Amino acid sequence: MQDFSVTITPRFYETDAMGHINNATLAAWFEVARVRYIEALAGDGAAVGRDWILATITVDFLDETFYGSDVELRIVDASIGNTSLTVFCEMWQDNRLTVKGKAVVVHIDYDAKQPRRVPDAMRRRLSP
Amino acid sequence: MQDFSVTITPRFYETDAMGHINNATLAAWFEVARVRYIEALAGDGAAVGRDWILATITVDFLDETFYGSDVELRIVDASIGNTSLTVFCEMWQDNRLTVKGKAVVVHIDYDAKQPRRVPDAMRRRLSP
Amino acid sequence: MQDFSVTITPRFYETDAMGHINNATLAAWFEVARVRYIEALAGDGAAVGRDWILATITVDFLDETFYGSDVELRIVDASIGNTSLTVFCEMWQDNRLTVKGKAVVVHIDYDAKQPRRVPDAMRRRLSP
Amino acid sequence: MQDFSVTITPRFYETDAMGHINNATLAAWFEVARVRYIEALAGDGAAVGRDWILATITVDFLDETFYGSDVELRIVDASIGNTSLTVFCEMWQDNRLTVKGKAVVVHIDYDAKQPRRVPDAMRRRLSP
Repeated sequence: MQDFSVTITPRFYETDAMGHINNATLAAWFEVARVRYIEALAGDGAAVGRDWILATITVDFLDETFYGSDVELRIVDASIGNTSLTVFCEMWQDNRLTVKGKAVVVHIDYDAKQPRRVPDAMRRRLSP
Repeated sequence: MQDFSVTITPRFYETDAMGHINNATLAAWFEVARVRYIEALAGDGAAVGRDWILATITVDFLDETFYGSDVELRIVDASIGNTSLTVFCEMWQDNRLTVKGKAVVVHIDYDAKQPRRVPDAMRRRLSP
Repeated sequence: MQDFSVTITPRFYETDAMGHINNATLAAWFEVARVRYIEALAGDGAAVGRDWILATITVDFLDETFYGSDVELRIVDASIGNTSLTVFCEMWQDNRLTVKGKAVVVHIDYDAKQPRRVPDAMRRRLSP
Repeated sequence: MQDFSVTITPRFYETDAMGHINNATLAAWFEVARVRYIEALAGDGAAVGRDWILATITVDFLDETFYGSDVELRIVDASIGNTSLTVFCEMWQDNRLTVKGKAVVVHIDYDAKQPRRVPDAMRRRLSP
């Protein structure tokens, strides 16, 4: 599970009056990369939202992201705790690092509303 | 059910690079007014989305809508068919009519996925 | 300028509580296809938003669009008037036609805020 | 500048397939409260986006936020550095604390793209 990335073509409605991609949109894009990464890592049996819930995100806005050029969202690191997964993301546009994101997601038993251990199969996939 | 209106304070992230509220956002705002109108008209027993589905919208963009001043969304007319409701909306900002919307929603039996007659109670509320 | 299409991978945050892609999002997607189509048709010298403004959209919601499968937005027809362009779009998911859209955009002189004739080069590109 | 709050009525399109308000939307709401707070604090002369740029946000998702009930976004604390302002926000729905946010915004000279000292008038308004 290395070199996982998602390419996003900015949409005009994602710009704001400052002329660049709005910060709230960039935080939302982080969800796009994170969800696809977890879907890939967890395999078919798991559903993002149901089996994994977001506990916290931190997003650092380092440089402007613009309309007109693709953005690559790279998952650059991930670490597994007992019941949680921490995912690190970078957004690159035209060789500039514009956004860094960090998210902690928790593996839960949805019906019991309890955290539960990250499955071994997923641990192996992450740390072969 | 006359003089139904919803006031929206534009959000910065709803602007786009042209410096005004983005057209896609304005179409989304129309949903806000329409949903609250139908909830008010249908009463507690009905759920928008489940009991009413959107068939078509037309949105006319007459003038720019800006950040910095409230927008009033007025339901200016509504007509009931056998199984459908047509809702007309206007958006006003600083005494300017900026957007006109028309939507047709259909009353359905969600499980059977079939249109069903608009309830009489709702007809009475609309045409006292 | 035939067979123009844009593929969109639905994002989780674009779903709503009914479990499918929200109607307001679908109307926004139509902007994505329309803007890229006009950019391709108009060539480098033109800017969507500045040179072309949206006058009206109609969106017909024919079937549900879901998370989990790509959607192809096809520009299926376009006709040029004196100062306007009418664009017809279809959204397809898993061989189902889920959304039809029609938009009228107007070519304007941004500073004078006046409509102006659609450039001949663009007419030729559209009707070779 | 105490007891600053913004009330948001959740919109149907802000829900996601899990049946609650989407996390990316909640991060966007934080912008709404933050921008209005800074506008109030900075006074008329300043423009969010132009004079203040967002450096980083952290959002903790503590409990679910639902459609159907208003959410109060409270600015619970703010601290001023030399060129930056740190803003703490809480979101409350039905007496439940559902989201906590922290943001650092930087006061800049837009043309020079340089940080500049937070104005004294604003310091006084924050710490009377």
